[in-house]
Amino acid sequence: MERRKFLNKSASAIVSYMGTLPLISLDTEAEKQALSLKPNSVILFQGDSITEGWRSPEPPNYNFDNAGRESLEYNDSNALGSGYAFIAGSEILRAHPNKKIKIFNKGISGNKVDDLIKRWDKDCINIKPDVLSILIGVNDFWDIITGNSKDAPEKYYEDYSKLLNITVEALPQTKLIICEPFAITGTKAVNESWFPAFNVYRDAARKLAAEFNAIFIPFQSVFDKAVSKAAGSYWCYDGVHPSIPGSNLMARAWLKAVKL
Amino acid sequence: MERRKFLNKSASAIVSYMGTLPLISLDTEAEKQALSLKPNSVILFQGDSITEGWRSPEPPNYNFDNAGRESLEYNDSNALGSGYAFIAGSEILRAHPNKKIKIFNKGISGNKVDDLIKRWDKDCINIKPDVLSILIGVNDFWDIITGNSKDAPEKYYEDYSKLLNITVEALPQTKLIICEPFAITGTKAVNESWFPAFNVYRDAARKLAAEFNAIFIPFQSVFDKAVSKAAGSYWCYDGVHPSIPGSNLMARAWLKAVKL
Repeated sequence: MERRKFLNKSASAIVSYMGTLPLISLDTEAEKQALSLKPNSVILFQGDSITEGWRSPEPPNYNFDNAGRESLEYNDSNALGSGYAFIAGSEILRAHPNKKIKIFNKGISGNKVDDLIKRWDKDCINIKPDVLSILIGVNDFWDIITGNSKDAPEKYYEDYSKLLNITVEALPQTKLIICEPFAITGTKAVNESWFPAFNVYRDAARKLAAEFNAIFIPFQSVFDKAVSKAAGSYWCYDGVHPSIPGSNLMARAWLKAVKL
Repeated sequence: MERRKFLNKSASAIVSYMGTLPLISLDTEAEKQALSLKPNSVILFQGDSITEGWRSPEPPNYNFDNAGRESLEYNDSNALGSGYAFIAGSEILRAHPNKKIKIFNKGISGNKVDDLIKRWDKDCINIKPDVLSILIGVNDFWDIITGNSKDAPEKYYEDYSKLLNITVEALPQTKLIICEPFAITGTKAVNESWFPAFNVYRDAARKLAAEFNAIFIPFQSVFDKAVSKAAGSYWCYDGVHPSIPGSNLMARAWLKAVKL
């Protein structure tokens, strides 16, 4: 007993010290082993501009690219951008050097769920991901609140459900990760009128994660906690698009939940 | 004694478990506290293409940039690129949200030490960094081995010493970080002929770090260890320019040594 107590104390002291450093915190054994990454795994990040993260369709014309960087569709900084997919991807590729992992980012700015449906064969099914992470929804809502769309909010759940059904039918072995859409009020693009209306989209994503046995990444709570430490615009430029620290925060929440 | 032994054992079990995850390992208390980051600190990354990391002088013409991202000279993914400076910077900005940290990247492709001297007023002294990290040297060597330069290898130490003397005179309070130049053989750009000749540059950087009381980041050993786990080109596209996992490796080694 005495020993166990002491172990717990010393372990928790270390964990607590780590909390002050840029580290992922330790979790339960179950969480640690949520998802193992097999050799030759293909990981695909899908979504809108938040996932896109300023990735380029073509390499920039830097002279050392000729000598150096290969322009691949995966594992390349052009391909992954410089958002959360890049940061999370860089951790995965560093931590699994001998597994020939391929990481793709096919996020496209402005996309709504039905845009994903339209390009799903090309940008998901054909890639045959072992791990598929989707973050979509803010544009579905944004278009409604700005009057650009007359869609009912329920269309998001219906379209998303359709997308996931297509996915599990074509790729029954693929591990799904559904990311919660998020928004930070008091910023350039997001005011109080977004809530509670926006919660319909958050709830739909959470419900679909449960229905499709997906890992759910609670990004809204991650950002809600963060705004107690710095202004919303510190984490998301305009309340929707993450800044550098916001992208890091997302990557860590993703890695913590997915445990690759 | 019994308790201490047990503590050591449990702590080292945790550290060893952590080694299998994407975590920075715990170090001695002294290392932990090597450098504290004060509010309003300015951090500057300087060097060549490796530091530049595909940063853009101008924001790409993505439509959501108009609504979202501010184009700042610091803390912006255009400004920081997508190399080790970006990854390390994203960790620092996330971990210190309330300190108004500014992170600059002024690495420029192809630069040698004397190029830094030429642009030092504009790209370093005027920025008044509290923390200055320099990685330079591979182009000084590369130009010699390819016959493009007749410089003596000793010029690197002399120029670098001059650069650092200018720096400490203008910015006596600035904390210096000197990064070891590195190269990975068996790759597109780097063959066996680079060593031991290239060690002159590594040794000069290490010597200067000691002379100028700088933190030294041993990047060559970091990559030497990594190549036991995957091919050189997995970590550096051509043996000189880091891939995504290589950039992550560098960022972690940097953060581990600098302890911001």
